[in-house]
Amino acid sequence: MTTPRKSFGSDNHAGAHPAVLRALADANSGDATAYGDDQRTAAAAGRLCDVFGATDAFFVFNGTAANVLGISLMLRPFEAVICAESAHLNVDECGAAERILGCKLLLVPTADGKLTPELVAARLGGRGDEHRAQPRAVEIAQVTELGTCYTLAELQRLREFCQDEDLLIYMDGARLANAAAFLDCKLAELAAEVDVLSFGGTKNGAVGAEAVIVMRAELAPVVRFQRKQQMQLASKMRFLAAQFSALLDDQLWLENARHSNAMARRLAAGVSDLPGVRLSYPVQSNAIFAALHPARIEELQREWNFQMWDDHVVRWMTAFDTTAADVDAFIAAIRHTGPGQAERAVP
Amino acid sequence: MTTPRKSFGSDNHAGAHPAVLRALADANSGDATAYGDDQRTAAAAGRLCDVFGATDAFFVFNGTAANVLGISLMLRPFEAVICAESAHLNVDECGAAERILGCKLLLVPTADGKLTPELVAARLGGRGDEHRAQPRAVEIAQVTELGTCYTLAELQRLREFCQDEDLLIYMDGARLANAAAFLDCKLAELAAEVDVLSFGGTKNGAVGAEAVIVMRAELAPVVRFQRKQQMQLASKMRFLAAQFSALLDDQLWLENARHSNAMARRLAAGVSDLPGVRLSYPVQSNAIFAALHPARIEELQREWNFQMWDDHVVRWMTAFDTTAADVDAFIAAIRHTGPGQAERAVP
Amino acid sequence: MTTPRKSFGSDNHAGAHPAVLRALADANSGDATAYGDDQRTAAAAGRLCDVFGATDAFFVFNGTAANVLGISLMLRPFEAVICAESAHLNVDECGAAERILGCKLLLVPTADGKLTPELVAARLGGRGDEHRAQPRAVEIAQVTELGTCYTLAELQRLREFCQDEDLLIYMDGARLANAAAFLDCKLAELAAEVDVLSFGGTKNGAVGAEAVIVMRAELAPVVRFQRKQQMQLASKMRFLAAQFSALLDDQLWLENARHSNAMARRLAAGVSDLPGVRLSYPVQSNAIFAALHPARIEELQREWNFQMWDDHVVRWMTAFDTTAADVDAFIAAIRHTGPGQAERAVP
Amino acid sequence: MTTPRKSFGSDNHAGAHPAVLRALADANSGDATAYGDDQRTAAAAGRLCDVFGATDAFFVFNGTAANVLGISLMLRPFEAVICAESAHLNVDECGAAERILGCKLLLVPTADGKLTPELVAARLGGRGDEHRAQPRAVEIAQVTELGTCYTLAELQRLREFCQDEDLLIYMDGARLANAAAFLDCKLAELAAEVDVLSFGGTKNGAVGAEAVIVMRAELAPVVRFQRKQQMQLASKMRFLAAQFSALLDDQLWLENARHSNAMARRLAAGVSDLPGVRLSYPVQSNAIFAALHPARIEELQREWNFQMWDDHVVRWMTAFDTTAADVDAFIAAIRHTGPGQAERAVP
Repeated sequence: MTTPRKSFGSDNHAGAHPAVLRALADANSGDATAYGDDQRTAAAAGRLCDVFGATDAFFVFNGTAANVLGISLMLRPFEAVICAESAHLNVDECGAAERILGCKLLLVPTADGKLTPELVAARLGGRGDEHRAQPRAVEIAQVTELGTCYTLAELQRLREFCQDEDLLIYMDGARLANAAAFLDCKLAELAAEVDVLSFGGTKNGAVGAEAVIVMRAELAPVVRFQRKQQMQLASKMRFLAAQFSALLDDQLWLENARHSNAMARRLAAGVSDLPGVRLSYPVQSNAIFAALHPARIEELQREWNFQMWDDHVVRWMTAFDTTAADVDAFIAAIRHTGPGQAERAVP
Repeated sequence: MTTPRKSFGSDNHAGAHPAVLRALADANSGDATAYGDDQRTAAAAGRLCDVFGATDAFFVFNGTAANVLGISLMLRPFEAVICAESAHLNVDECGAAERILGCKLLLVPTADGKLTPELVAARLGGRGDEHRAQPRAVEIAQVTELGTCYTLAELQRLREFCQDEDLLIYMDGARLANAAAFLDCKLAELAAEVDVLSFGGTKNGAVGAEAVIVMRAELAPVVRFQRKQQMQLASKMRFLAAQFSALLDDQLWLENARHSNAMARRLAAGVSDLPGVRLSYPVQSNAIFAALHPARIEELQREWNFQMWDDHVVRWMTAFDTTAADVDAFIAAIRHTGPGQAERAVP
Repeated sequence: MTTPRKSFGSDNHAGAHPAVLRALADANSGDATAYGDDQRTAAAAGRLCDVFGATDAFFVFNGTAANVLGISLMLRPFEAVICAESAHLNVDECGAAERILGCKLLLVPTADGKLTPELVAARLGGRGDEHRAQPRAVEIAQVTELGTCYTLAELQRLREFCQDEDLLIYMDGARLANAAAFLDCKLAELAAEVDVLSFGGTKNGAVGAEAVIVMRAELAPVVRFQRKQQMQLASKMRFLAAQFSALLDDQLWLENARHSNAMARRLAAGVSDLPGVRLSYPVQSNAIFAALHPARIEELQREWNFQMWDDHVVRWMTAFDTTAADVDAFIAAIRHTGPGQAERAVP
Repeated sequence: MTTPRKSFGSDNHAGAHPAVLRALADANSGDATAYGDDQRTAAAAGRLCDVFGATDAFFVFNGTAANVLGISLMLRPFEAVICAESAHLNVDECGAAERILGCKLLLVPTADGKLTPELVAARLGGRGDEHRAQPRAVEIAQVTELGTCYTLAELQRLREFCQDEDLLIYMDGARLANAAAFLDCKLAELAAEVDVLSFGGTKNGAVGAEAVIVMRAELAPVVRFQRKQQMQLASKMRFLAAQFSALLDDQLWLENARHSNAMARRLAAGVSDLPGVRLSYPVQSNAIFAALHPARIEELQREWNFQMWDDHVVRWMTAFDTTAADVDAFIAAIRHTGPGQAERAVP
């Protein structure tokens, strides 16, 4: 029996990092007060605050919940969120923002998943007009849904614009570790440009845990209530906290992110010279988007797991546990599917 | 240094059963498709369906979410839920039902946390009147918030009434294992009397996992969408599934429930003859409610962890890992606080 | 053909006061900017502000909407409203508060529909506990759903308590005119004890118009947006404004309220000495609640329009256009139904 | 003193048609049971059913409410509405759909405000995928927000497509009368192609009244509850019904619509040959959109009331009471602003 091929379908196809599982076992000693009123939770939240320069940090179960909770801190009922049309918040959360928050998303088409002051400005019409939902928050993702990263300068420019316009910024950081690794910057440098953000553990090697990081003191007092009401309060909170403690120890989060980014670059490098393979965006994280001929995609998918993103575009993702050998085998398979066949040009 | 005293504060002060942690480690091999489209999840859900005689089973993160998801399957926007005033759904979920479902709870005061056909009937006024939210679902808890259990006969009677009245029943089974252990019945016997229920893993020894069990085929198709929208879709679902697999193996869930129930009975037996200690409800699960003199409570709480339920009533809970020695030490402490002091009578 | 008997079913069975219809006709000259940005609206709102000593005043279509809009100004998502169990907000608005505001109502059983500091205090448990919806607003009705009125002293006492407890007060004033008439006080005296209130036009002789009166400046800026989102922004606003202008002219609102109150007192006086008729509450407005034998009720309802309130209790309401002759005929009919029949005693 | 110039700002700047006010006065005789349980309401609703070939008809207060109520009949919580990006539902209702219905709007850019099967098809991706809000309803407006009308053939084609795709259609008919007048078709022909629609009274000469027309029997039973919960149940319903009765008498609605359409055509004809005036869309109702030089717009707005639609585009609307003289005076003013000035070309 052969080992199954590594999935390039998603970074959440991977399991958990062994250190995370060990941390769960370590946390399983004796009693702990429920709902986060325990020492392990306080310690992990405190470490996150230190790392991010944050006011407070709260654990939740998944990325959709982190986004909804984070944004819920910013809005009154008639206020709206400006975000990229391609945002996970808009596309992949089954309308949770509209249902749970009741807010309108003001969508902006983008070239690469990133908002700019100019793109945001284009959605500010109608402020003060009672017929319009009032823009109040800007949602960005770092890494974006298209695998791209905002530079620190881009974040600063957006931040200044938003401050001038009295807009708050929420940053979806489901893959924030990958962005910090790509930009070679501190998490605090990223966080300093926003009001609330999430820090994803799950795609970084956790079993399942995300943190909502609050940068403004006045937004923090209501988080506990909102989290509970939004069904995100874990009773045995120590087991969420322990996952983050493991990722923070010796900057495991950074090691995991650097590795998965490196594997994505290796994959990109291995296929970018191939005729009939066209990278859709710069590779700035652990995701590669590439246009291929449909017949080639079909042939590859018989043996390899990855997602269609669009009619002709595929998404290949690496994870903390993707090996160089996995990547090389996948590169070989891709090369094998397409040689010299004119009809397999990218449409 | 002495070992800290066992908490009698809640069954979620306990950690996870070692078998659950082993199951997490076992599940951590290789890739698995995310969001529940993997074999471990299918297997665990299938086992739950077999055990409950159910149409389908879905994993979520916590008990509040299970309740909200389960009830969301039953209601149109103008429909209401009849439940006990003391229900967790009403008291302890920070208004999640009202916020997430937008539904009115029609509350019924009860003597012991249990609804009867007569109590439900009293809330059916106004059916067909457009000014009234329309009763459609009945929410019960098994075990109730007051530690009591419905007998199978009581469930059947309620069921017949609800069928006659075109009402659906949702059963909050955060401690369903304890009820099955107390009644010495099968889970399927309990489930047969309701339309949707939850089956709690967390209080039974899981790290954090609950299942929503759907008994009616026509309610199942929308669960996936509602779960995602309600922010309860785990990406690495195998780690929720694995917890339930561990609890189902060799009926660990039943062993855990029987044990914690037995510890509660032992505690009740050890204090029920004490002057100045009055049990508030029959002990039918792993919870004891007792009225004590405030001074006695204050003295006990200096060294022991338990909750005030009411001004003079305390709640003591046992867990799967509470030992006979823990109980006996607690009994001794209780006995020590109160001997022969007239002023310490129950108010 | 005989004239149909006057309805005692509700004060909204009456039509509109002729002065209100004349005001509509007067307002129908030339163009007016839509959505309230016209002179008639500004004038009517300004007059209401003067009369109430208010910051701002906004017109909406009906009483449920006024209640929902008014309370929406006070709450964050996890906050709750304390109100009487018998409140219109709770019983007769088809769950609008839960659906539109997403908030929990914390219900208080009352003897006469009125809240007291003590009754409110009993619902303040769990403040600061993230598992509990947090009490933030107190909803009272003046006149209450049971026809009773708070005295000014009672309002002041409740107000002081609420200020001490950091609670805001919303007053449902669907029949506020009747209360002011009964108490012989100014509208501003009533309004001074609350944060937001409604002032009902419809039951006072309007075609259909209510005002939301805002007493605190910081709550006013968002009303326009909330009103629009809550589907209560009239395009031809001048026709709502005109109705209030008519009611304010020469204090027509007070004349109408005094008259309907007087008719209720006349009715009460005419039946209170009858064996087998027991008034349920003091008659302090235009509503009478009375317990009668079911057979007597049945006989009366063959020819007269009124509502059952409870199994044995009826509600009789008078309106601005109820005449003394109407009342006397109704009294005669009531007297006629019951003479000397032992079996017709109030159960 | 001169008569103020007729507003071309909106058809709701006009007052009410005298026949509508007379109908209010006529309806003001005697008592009527509240909340629509009266003969006038039954008669008016019945007439609407006859005219539309409908199952049932319900009165509400305004257009936003009609849209929200109509769409609320079609959706489960995780379902979405496909609509034109320019739709009133999306742009001008302050996020009511998201807040009150909690649903996502799937937006489609259009050339002229009209959806086609192809445009709708482009938003159907992700059906069956739990991460995506599921498209269920298609919202169109007839007349569209850009003043254009669907032909009957276009409606039929859309209808067939939607039936094949199991999509329901809601039609915002705030200006449906104008569409029927333009197409010279029956209201029933328009209604036959959709599942639920609104029929606007307000812009057609009412004081303020809209009807929700239900074409499918299975959608009707819940309307009463949804309407009440959505704060749209009028207590003195007869006064909404009377407005529609007046508009139906002798097809006043059609006369009003034909007249305002004719005035728009007159205005368009009077300016379409002007250099520097470019009509943006075909004139198919009572709205004209035209691109003009900003300086010209500024000069015109000093004396005339109309709206900016876009940076260089204005909207001119006519109403049932716009006269030929009004139009001719406005044409003269427009002509006067722009003669022979090269710099006043449309940008």
